[in-house]
Amino acid sequence: MVPHLTTALTGPLLSLEQRMLAAMPQIEHWFRSQWAEYSVPFYASVDLRNAGFKLAPVDTNLFPGGFNNLNPEFLSLCVQAAMSAVEKICPDARRLLVIPENHTRNTFYLRNVAALTNILRHAGLEVRIGSISPEITEPTYLETHDGGSILLEPVQRKGNRLVLENFDSCAILLNNDLSGGVPEILQGLEQNLIPPLHAGWATRRKSQHFSAYNRVAQDFANLLGIDEWLVNPYFDTCSGLDFHARVGEAELAEKVEQLLAKIRIKYAEYGVEQEPFVIVKADAGTYGMGIMTVKSPDDVKDLNRKQRNKMAVVKEGLQVSEVILQEGVYTFECIHDAVAEPVVYMMDHFVVGGFYRVHTGRGVDENLNAPGMHFEPLAFEKPCSLPDCAGAPDAPPNRFYAYGVVARLALLAAAIELQEHDPDQ
Amino acid sequence: MVPHLTTALTGPLLSLEQRMLAAMPQIEHWFRSQWAEYSVPFYASVDLRNAGFKLAPVDTNLFPGGFNNLNPEFLSLCVQAAMSAVEKICPDARRLLVIPENHTRNTFYLRNVAALTNILRHAGLEVRIGSISPEITEPTYLETHDGGSILLEPVQRKGNRLVLENFDSCAILLNNDLSGGVPEILQGLEQNLIPPLHAGWATRRKSQHFSAYNRVAQDFANLLGIDEWLVNPYFDTCSGLDFHARVGEAELAEKVEQLLAKIRIKYAEYGVEQEPFVIVKADAGTYGMGIMTVKSPDDVKDLNRKQRNKMAVVKEGLQVSEVILQEGVYTFECIHDAVAEPVVYMMDHFVVGGFYRVHTGRGVDENLNAPGMHFEPLAFEKPCSLPDCAGAPDAPPNRFYAYGVVARLALLAAAIELQEHDPDQ
Repeated sequence: MVPHLTTALTGPLLSLEQRMLAAMPQIEHWFRSQWAEYSVPFYASVDLRNAGFKLAPVDTNLFPGGFNNLNPEFLSLCVQAAMSAVEKICPDARRLLVIPENHTRNTFYLRNVAALTNILRHAGLEVRIGSISPEITEPTYLETHDGGSILLEPVQRKGNRLVLENFDSCAILLNNDLSGGVPEILQGLEQNLIPPLHAGWATRRKSQHFSAYNRVAQDFANLLGIDEWLVNPYFDTCSGLDFHARVGEAELAEKVEQLLAKIRIKYAEYGVEQEPFVIVKADAGTYGMGIMTVKSPDDVKDLNRKQRNKMAVVKEGLQVSEVILQEGVYTFECIHDAVAEPVVYMMDHFVVGGFYRVHTGRGVDENLNAPGMHFEPLAFEKPCSLPDCAGAPDAPPNRFYAYGVVARLALLAAAIELQEHDPDQ
Repeated sequence: MVPHLTTALTGPLLSLEQRMLAAMPQIEHWFRSQWAEYSVPFYASVDLRNAGFKLAPVDTNLFPGGFNNLNPEFLSLCVQAAMSAVEKICPDARRLLVIPENHTRNTFYLRNVAALTNILRHAGLEVRIGSISPEITEPTYLETHDGGSILLEPVQRKGNRLVLENFDSCAILLNNDLSGGVPEILQGLEQNLIPPLHAGWATRRKSQHFSAYNRVAQDFANLLGIDEWLVNPYFDTCSGLDFHARVGEAELAEKVEQLLAKIRIKYAEYGVEQEPFVIVKADAGTYGMGIMTVKSPDDVKDLNRKQRNKMAVVKEGLQVSEVILQEGVYTFECIHDAVAEPVVYMMDHFVVGGFYRVHTGRGVDENLNAPGMHFEPLAFEKPCSLPDCAGAPDAPPNRFYAYGVVARLALLAAAIELQEHDPDQ
């Protein structure tokens, strides 16, 4: 089952997918040359929005948390890509310590940890899971409530090494996005941390990512001879905000208006009849907290206490003073009456699968990765690497190929972003 | 459907598979370190024989010809591995010229060419097929008789480049094993030839391959703490032969006797009750010509004219003066009453699939890749990278993992062999 596009305005997207199909050898050659220049992250997932007239990434996660949602039929693709990733990033590793998030009660997340460690074990690593949660004080089996369980062990700091009982690994894989800052126990380690600490939300900024993405999208658009906007959402930033004290509201409202005006021009150019909107979200952070859908500057003025509280903090109590204003991209993919948003998974620079977040209770202009959100994952039926050049541009394998291309553009932006903001450079 | 082992003597093999499963992280780590040292061939296939008590490669093909026999469900694995291979060996390539064998009437082979070019196109290359056959004088569509067709174009030599009409590629992929020697048109090219010319049978010797394999198998056996013989067939060589003139028969008979004696000792050690046998085949060459199954020195003495003719020439009329004597390994895998021999396919250093040659009319001690041979290919049901550590050692995914390991040992031997015999070194 593959979601269908509900918009009538598929012209520009079909033409975009058609161009990608026709330019496949050029696209792949271009990616090869890019990967020769930039170090690819070990893994990533990219949230896409498919508006029919536009296909763009809206979030790039360097600590992907949904490996359990991928199609099990393509596990071997993950294993093979993981082998490549290990070869590039930690070729000498025999053992790998995985540090997950501290949500030990989220069984969906625990299933992700189980799926991820399963992939890494099949790639030929001895893998154990070390928790930095204060709740894990002894080796603890946690039920994943799908018939499995995982063993979490408390990490121990020994000098500049993080170890488990009888387990000293030369590399550590983080599946923890460090939203609450970099805990002391992870600082100054001599082991190879993957991804590096500065990929965590304690350091990373969405605006830095999308700034790198601007350049990637521009190059890609030149390669294909297309309007960059078809794969790139406009964005702006606003800093020095204090939602509680209502500092910065006017500036934010003005920037919202400017961004809406830019989008309106593009919508007019392409004959899009929907209302432009902007997503305002914390520049550092994740898990869909601190996010607003804004259709008018008034929407960010005179926020009530509840709205201000919602925007003021993200995960782990982090205060929000910097936000990114991102052009909202409509999601026009639906299954029955539910909105579906594709999420593409990559290991090394290979697209290893993906799934749709299918959400019945939300609108086409809302963020689908929001607090308390319950989505049904729908695994991609087919790999993203097998376009059918003889098929229609919107045939599922071709749509998946386009998703894989745009997701890899975001991955490349992440690679550039990490290189540019590497504190050791 | 997976063939079953018909021998009762599965003890040592089960123990071998069990050791491989248990040592999987060490094995994969060891392979990673080997691939850091040796350049992996672009692609290869390895014929294995599974005797229940022994699992060994008997032939390594650097111009694999059965991509059409792989499970189409794992096409994406091939594409991903091909991307890796291209990245390593010809990262700058946009276009790839494929040079197939000259058998333009063998529709099975043509299907292989179609399958291979399909993989390469999905890996993002512009691929065209250039024939060096004198029969192809203009662009010619050949029917593959499975509903498809392929376009063969005559190659043109322009200076030191091989081109097609409006098609100049920076790399050339050979799917032609050069059994008849290196044609002049392929000599002195400035383009990157993959694999290199010295991988062809004009230069390559089976004995050089198995000499490298001896070292690989020894290292691997040390790693696992097993008897090397369990994965390595004994071999010897005999040169200066002239089957027509009956020169060298006595020496050959003596070497057969010595080899049989060595095998007898091992069979006694492991309680194998079958009769030892030796395969005598041309040291250079392929396609199952010039091959004999020998159970006694007398079998190579007093050959009749027909037998001598059969041994004297291989493909394309090449004279045989050097042979390899290889310990015969029984095939104890059967489907219904048919003998089944696994063939494992690799691109870059990844196992991308395989199939069984299922042959009803042949014995367990005969070569299944023989002239006039008709086999039914049975694609591997599962990838070779997903062992089920909780399952029995002979559960299909685990048997496939063992096949993938032994095939990669042979691939590594090929890498070493090509490096050692590189004329430019």
